[in-house]
Amino acid sequence: MDSSLTPVQTLDSRVKTLELTSEGVLLLDQTCIPKEIRYIPIHTPETMAEAIRTMIVRGAPAIGIAGAFGLVLAARIHAQGHSSVESFESGLRRDAELLRNARPTAVNLGWAMDRMLEALERELQQGAEVSQVVERLSEKAQCILDEDIDANKTMGRLGASLVPKGARILTHCNAGALATGGYGTALGVVRAAFAQDPTVEVYADETRPRLQGARLTTWELIQDGIPVTLVTDGMSGSLMQAGRVDLVIVGADRITANGDTANKIGTYNLALVAHAHGVPFYVAAPTSTIDLALPTGSEIPIEERDPEEIYRIHDEDICPPEARFYNPAFDVTPARYVTAIITEKGIARPDYKESLAALF
Amino acid sequence: MDSSLTPVQTLDSRVKTLELTSEGVLLLDQTCIPKEIRYIPIHTPETMAEAIRTMIVRGAPAIGIAGAFGLVLAARIHAQGHSSVESFESGLRRDAELLRNARPTAVNLGWAMDRMLEALERELQQGAEVSQVVERLSEKAQCILDEDIDANKTMGRLGASLVPKGARILTHCNAGALATGGYGTALGVVRAAFAQDPTVEVYADETRPRLQGARLTTWELIQDGIPVTLVTDGMSGSLMQAGRVDLVIVGADRITANGDTANKIGTYNLALVAHAHGVPFYVAAPTSTIDLALPTGSEIPIEERDPEEIYRIHDEDICPPEARFYNPAFDVTPARYVTAIITEKGIARPDYKESLAALF
Repeated sequence: MDSSLTPVQTLDSRVKTLELTSEGVLLLDQTCIPKEIRYIPIHTPETMAEAIRTMIVRGAPAIGIAGAFGLVLAARIHAQGHSSVESFESGLRRDAELLRNARPTAVNLGWAMDRMLEALERELQQGAEVSQVVERLSEKAQCILDEDIDANKTMGRLGASLVPKGARILTHCNAGALATGGYGTALGVVRAAFAQDPTVEVYADETRPRLQGARLTTWELIQDGIPVTLVTDGMSGSLMQAGRVDLVIVGADRITANGDTANKIGTYNLALVAHAHGVPFYVAAPTSTIDLALPTGSEIPIEERDPEEIYRIHDEDICPPEARFYNPAFDVTPARYVTAIITEKGIARPDYKESLAALF
Repeated sequence: MDSSLTPVQTLDSRVKTLELTSEGVLLLDQTCIPKEIRYIPIHTPETMAEAIRTMIVRGAPAIGIAGAFGLVLAARIHAQGHSSVESFESGLRRDAELLRNARPTAVNLGWAMDRMLEALERELQQGAEVSQVVERLSEKAQCILDEDIDANKTMGRLGASLVPKGARILTHCNAGALATGGYGTALGVVRAAFAQDPTVEVYADETRPRLQGARLTTWELIQDGIPVTLVTDGMSGSLMQAGRVDLVIVGADRITANGDTANKIGTYNLALVAHAHGVPFYVAAPTSTIDLALPTGSEIPIEERDPEEIYRIHDEDICPPEARFYNPAFDVTPARYVTAIITEKGIARPDYKESLAALF
């Protein structure tokens, strides 16, 4: 399949981040936006894991869906070559582990694998044919995508109630349609608020090192005609000192039982700056991002990525080769700096241990 | 004069940032480091003002010295073409205004102009010949450079007393030899501390948008064999949460009577993060950076620079052209977040209104 022959044209407010087709999976290549809009065809769980690792697809909900799609590809492959139902199942379980481990911090990937494997077990217990199992796993994966979009829209509606008239909203990284099945978490709230009140506007942190705020968030918002001002990650204090930010809203990669929130590196700094200025700091995330199994954020595995993400920009190095580097992809914002957590099942407020548990 | 014919090779701990010669001024081109080490010859006050504006030379103390050197160039030119002492003087005063206004935030530029014009007045009152005045202004400008280096070394010695054994020091932007006459303010303290204790090490914020931390601070420290780890501006919270930072030290562009400190954008965020973690936050700056005429930081003029600094990196855009931008070059850290201010005349601590005034 040649991606240039099958363009998915959806440059509207519901950017199509990824799609399961009868031939494979199409991933919008998020490493090229805004320079180029292209879709990458994926046919195996191995290339899906690689696409997740290299951030062709990124964003906690989106990589959960991508993982589920990857397992559908695995099911199609193993359905062709299996010698027994047992070998089909064990092949799928191996591929699920491969996909689960593609990136460690976002819990959505593991959450999606668990749901897919539950479906697998259920079908096998009921004595389904392998071809039926493949069909059911495809439906399940599509259901995960559809539910994510629904969750985003509900979150958007709920979250919009927290956005005052004419609000100037600061966000970090990209928690938009591109990071999800569509619509977005933090940007879903922005979209819903803007639909009600076209005077709201957005400040976007550029979000070094990968510049998701500059590359993806501005692009997404511009598609929808939502005014967006790009700033560097060090400007939030200056903005708030000048009274130019009414609220902060970000996504999440994993929220622990006590409300501690792992999100893109730089989020914690932003939360501290907001706290110092009394600016509300909201997290928007589907309940699939909440990991009640972990009591606090200190237990969240934080991915450290290739230092090249820091020192090389557009094929040119920004420092001498002798420098050392530290490149954690995420940080953890303690719950005490989080004003509220917006989910599709309701808005949780402190004490989060109680309010998050009550959502399930 | 062709800079390629007159290389100034001083890649040691006293990087030669700028030099006054009989032919003109040589400026180390700080926009090319670390890719290329080259000196730009400057022959007129207009090109000096342009070099300051475009940040070929940058750093509050360095642009003060560059301004003084620019006025020497002006004096040499007006000494050639003047019809009277009065026309010589008025020409110099016009050029002093041009240089003074090249950048608005750092007070050192105005401070240096004031000192040069005082010297001019003194000479003219004493009835000096124009050629003598030129000679005296050259000496004065060289004296400003030499005093700056001496001040840095004194600051380094004083500041090193605040650095614990084996300290991990986080800094923002470049307040090193490149930002001064030589040796550096914040990095002068680092150099002095490292000379006593080779187990100290540095974390350098890359400092978007101009990446002075990545381009200049790592390069300077590597010249001196001081271990340096580059991080993005959003990583300080993650570092401090992990207990990896013992103190923060930064330079300053203007310090007001109450201790409020203007410095490179992102400094205020860093101060808030340090404050939240109980990590000492030190400012190192010569007394020429202290502006007792301004009571508080809200009166400091903050330069807003070309948005291209944000959206274009290495000739490639990072966002769609429809985005808006906000690009303040500096922010103001309120005095309450500053643990101490290290100057060549002593270490000031709160209440700064008293302790800073006592330095003069």
